[in-house]
Amino acid sequence: MRPGDQVPTEPELMARFGVSRTTVRQALAELEHEELIYRRSGKGTFVTQPKIEQELTALTGFVEDMVALGMEASARVVGIERVPADETVACHLRVAPGSTVVRLERVRLGNGEPLSFDVTFLPPALGERVAREDLTVHPIFALLEDKYGIPLGYADYCMHAATADRTVARHLEIARGAPILLIERMTYAEAGTPLDYERLHYRGDRVSYRMRLLRRAPGRTSEAAG
Amino acid sequence: MRPGDQVPTEPELMARFGVSRTTVRQALAELEHEELIYRRSGKGTFVTQPKIEQELTALTGFVEDMVALGMEASARVVGIERVPADETVACHLRVAPGSTVVRLERVRLGNGEPLSFDVTFLPPALGERVAREDLTVHPIFALLEDKYGIPLGYADYCMHAATADRTVARHLEIARGAPILLIERMTYAEAGTPLDYERLHYRGDRVSYRMRLLRRAPGRTSEAAG
Repeated sequence: MRPGDQVPTEPELMARFGVSRTTVRQALAELEHEELIYRRSGKGTFVTQPKIEQELTALTGFVEDMVALGMEASARVVGIERVPADETVACHLRVAPGSTVVRLERVRLGNGEPLSFDVTFLPPALGERVAREDLTVHPIFALLEDKYGIPLGYADYCMHAATADRTVARHLEIARGAPILLIERMTYAEAGTPLDYERLHYRGDRVSYRMRLLRRAPGRTSEAAG
Repeated sequence: MRPGDQVPTEPELMARFGVSRTTVRQALAELEHEELIYRRSGKGTFVTQPKIEQELTALTGFVEDMVALGMEASARVVGIERVPADETVACHLRVAPGSTVVRLERVRLGNGEPLSFDVTFLPPALGERVAREDLTVHPIFALLEDKYGIPLGYADYCMHAATADRTVARHLEIARGAPILLIERMTYAEAGTPLDYERLHYRGDRVSYRMRLLRRAPGRTSEAAG
């Protein structure tokens, strides 16, 4: 059986393996406890999808992350709008509050499954250029670097735990209130020019982030770090 | 007014500033939209506590993090038990599944407010030693490094979004289903010996994590990173 497959019913398992209902139930309870299978009320029991673990070592985009995991990336564009920058967006993109910026909303899929709902804010000139591209095909990072010749420098990440509101739940096809890993990411060009402020809403049940931290920064003496 | 303070009622604000109810309501709505104040049903309106932003740059413990933020750290010990290691704990601590490990449960507070519920698993010999200490006073990292002479080397972090179950909600004094930033942290000694496997349940509404990632690892050529 493969991830996502439906597990046979108790009577089917009893018949197939010639064991009692008690044995079947014990086996299913154990698999459920180990989170190898999960129940969906009224729908049956299914094989758990392994959680996607991403490394936080360098600034990478969704398509690059999926490629690194051997998964197929795709995107649905659900909104392209000119909106006035609120205080947060204005501060990040270094534009005047209330000035027009471009907001893009995309659902990012891995192997056809919605994994992230991305809300992207771009400064006006860059935003208008990006808005004319086919964003179901081109990731923004690739447009910036390969087509526009703007090498990315670095990004500041802020990671929050949140729960899905109605909009996020609808786009990710999950329940309202389900856990969301909300990543605010502000990406800068090599020269430090602000390029791209994003709010990435990742499915908490499908995606987690890994990193290794050293006790003492390399080159720092143990005395200074004490 | 300070974070956590209750905001005066609409009639009080109207009287104090000599303005209309419409003006007061507009002002409150704006402050609420900017998340500077929040309403608790049946209790009133309060000044928002600024979210605690922690830097993910080096392996640090809760007390060190609080000190760096100028906050006062304290702890409540809610459980010290010998338990059989399940598959995950056994794999992380490199002990046989089912063998006895020490599990510690602590609520970590910042300025008296519960911020994290920490479940810590220690290998047996180290665990017995730590279990005899006064953990309301001594953080485990300080015991290991300063008292036992075991310098920490590094830790592998895995960050998940989750929601509070009944136990977590009770210890953190939040609602069931509230967002939780769940950090799995496996800490190793300098020589790579596994020391300490933790599940840190941070309040999602109070704590977030920041880091800066570079597009290309230093020293890597842009061609290799393309």
